[in-house]
Amino acid sequence: MDGTTRVAVAELGRMVEAAFMRAGFNAQQAGAIARVIAAAERDGAKSHGIYRIEGCLRTLAAGKVSPDARPELVDDGGAVIRVLAGGGFAPAAFDLGLPALAARAEKLGLAALAINDCVHYSALWPEVEALAERGLAGLAICPSYAAVAPAGGTGPLLGTNPMAFAWPRPQGLPYVFDFATSAAAQGEIELLARAGKPMPAGWALDAQGAPTTDPAAGLAGALLPFGGHKGSAITTMIELLAAAMIGDLTSRAALDELGTLELAPKHGELILAFSPARFAAGRPGDPLVAAEALFEAILGQGARLPGQRRLAFRARSEAEGIALDGDELALIERVQRDGLAALA
Amino acid sequence: MDGTTRVAVAELGRMVEAAFMRAGFNAQQAGAIARVIAAAERDGAKSHGIYRIEGCLRTLAAGKVSPDARPELVDDGGAVIRVLAGGGFAPAAFDLGLPALAARAEKLGLAALAINDCVHYSALWPEVEALAERGLAGLAICPSYAAVAPAGGTGPLLGTNPMAFAWPRPQGLPYVFDFATSAAAQGEIELLARAGKPMPAGWALDAQGAPTTDPAAGLAGALLPFGGHKGSAITTMIELLAAAMIGDLTSRAALDELGTLELAPKHGELILAFSPARFAAGRPGDPLVAAEALFEAILGQGARLPGQRRLAFRARSEAEGIALDGDELALIERVQRDGLAALA
Repeated sequence: MDGTTRVAVAELGRMVEAAFMRAGFNAQQAGAIARVIAAAERDGAKSHGIYRIEGCLRTLAAGKVSPDARPELVDDGGAVIRVLAGGGFAPAAFDLGLPALAARAEKLGLAALAINDCVHYSALWPEVEALAERGLAGLAICPSYAAVAPAGGTGPLLGTNPMAFAWPRPQGLPYVFDFATSAAAQGEIELLARAGKPMPAGWALDAQGAPTTDPAAGLAGALLPFGGHKGSAITTMIELLAAAMIGDLTSRAALDELGTLELAPKHGELILAFSPARFAAGRPGDPLVAAEALFEAILGQGARLPGQRRLAFRARSEAEGIALDGDELALIERVQRDGLAALA
Repeated sequence: MDGTTRVAVAELGRMVEAAFMRAGFNAQQAGAIARVIAAAERDGAKSHGIYRIEGCLRTLAAGKVSPDARPELVDDGGAVIRVLAGGGFAPAAFDLGLPALAARAEKLGLAALAINDCVHYSALWPEVEALAERGLAGLAICPSYAAVAPAGGTGPLLGTNPMAFAWPRPQGLPYVFDFATSAAAQGEIELLARAGKPMPAGWALDAQGAPTTDPAAGLAGALLPFGGHKGSAITTMIELLAAAMIGDLTSRAALDELGTLELAPKHGELILAFSPARFAAGRPGDPLVAAEALFEAILGQGARLPGQRRLAFRARSEAEGIALDGDELALIERVQRDGLAALA
């Protein structure tokens, strides 16, 4: 009688897939989105779970995502594989590119997947985790939309530009991190605004470009990169590699195109895959063993590995199912029944 | 009569090369080291210039660098090129690998250079700049030796692990950044200790693993990564990719091997080269033009691009020569005359 229902991970995936198909997405798009949303719920990453369904549907209702997109693979046999997402969501494009990316990294030691014209609402960790499950290290980066000022600047220009990395572990789940390169997420500031609490210094500028600790002023201004000028340089590098270099939109251009921060932006994404076996070939020792020694030393100091909480949550979800509350279940059922009309 | 002498960049290179040869390095090692030291002085990066000569020689005197190393290229035709540095300094190894790395990136779109068994004292920006001069984007990372605690940890484990990136610009010099992934450099803390000033919070832990703003306590403890847990994750990624993955020493292992922070450590380095032309093939627009728009927008906010000061200094050095003081000239002349005996 705690108001929650436990649903198996795969079952949640099927429910969300059916809802997205009813809303108008083809099976390829709906299936890929649903798997990512179910994986987020499985890992207790609520902000990328069922919570995202409404945003995806609003983006569809606004005509800003192609529900029937069929991603296309472009492969010239080199180290760069491209998937043209055709204006669909990113997960279907990644699913198409993954086997080719992994095979190329195994063949050449290193390969990249450039995804173009994808609408992005999801976290990057499912993608780098999928590489680590194949014994590869993965690094994924993408722009978002202009919300962050460069260090020393005054207004929104860069994105919150996430960066995710995974390293395979011989026993158990991979080492994974995934974070925005802004000091804080928009959502964290919104929570403080609602609670009437000040922001820590260094999170945001006001609309005049001055540092502020007032959450409302920060929301009207610009976020700041994490880590001062070093983080700002990394955020800028993400714009260069995962936008300009792959022939896709920067965060500034993506916002200009979309005209709002309320819908999911369309841009590109860059994923690098490394084969530790190939990089270490002929060298003494095993790279995975050396990595385990490093992880043990980190844990031995009482520090955490990133993603630990998420992976602990996953174990419980897989054993007991995912706990959904009544509102979450009702939303999915409403979309399954009414499709886009469920938004109203 | 200001006590300085102006020396042309190439002339300084020849002077330093002669000094290193007199100290016992072969021409390949001495020439590569000298070019990097002269480039640092040219750019006003004094901490990587003539100042480093004594450290290089002390490392030689301790038998911790091979003065007659002849780096070897290993190339299986894939995207990963390897140079075995043979215990010599990194610059000669990079010089050997650069043409192969650039050619492979042009052919495949993306390639990596793994340098193994190199002794490291130099900045990484000369290496990524050399890629940008060939129209490629470059990313270079390497471990150092255990001096940094992981976020949430208590003692030295990770290195100050630098990260350098360069992007080619059609007019003028490339966009370049190069920084340690620690919050501060050991040298900055030493300066505060000497001045009797406190450190900013977040720079270091004391020997008991507690946060401190006392520089002396920080020097006896551990540095902290920049940017909290995000920077700590990036520093850890550098250990994984540029140490474990390429079959070389982590910062912890490099320190264990060397036994001191006073000499240059031996480990590996990883450099990625990206061809924007290949990554953007078939896409609308020119990646270099899109990047210029981003740089203009950053500058338009009154923010700086990283490396601007260094590049301004370079223009002056190239026009007027590098200003050296009497002590600097005397050191070079002493080593040219007495070789290693100049250390005493």
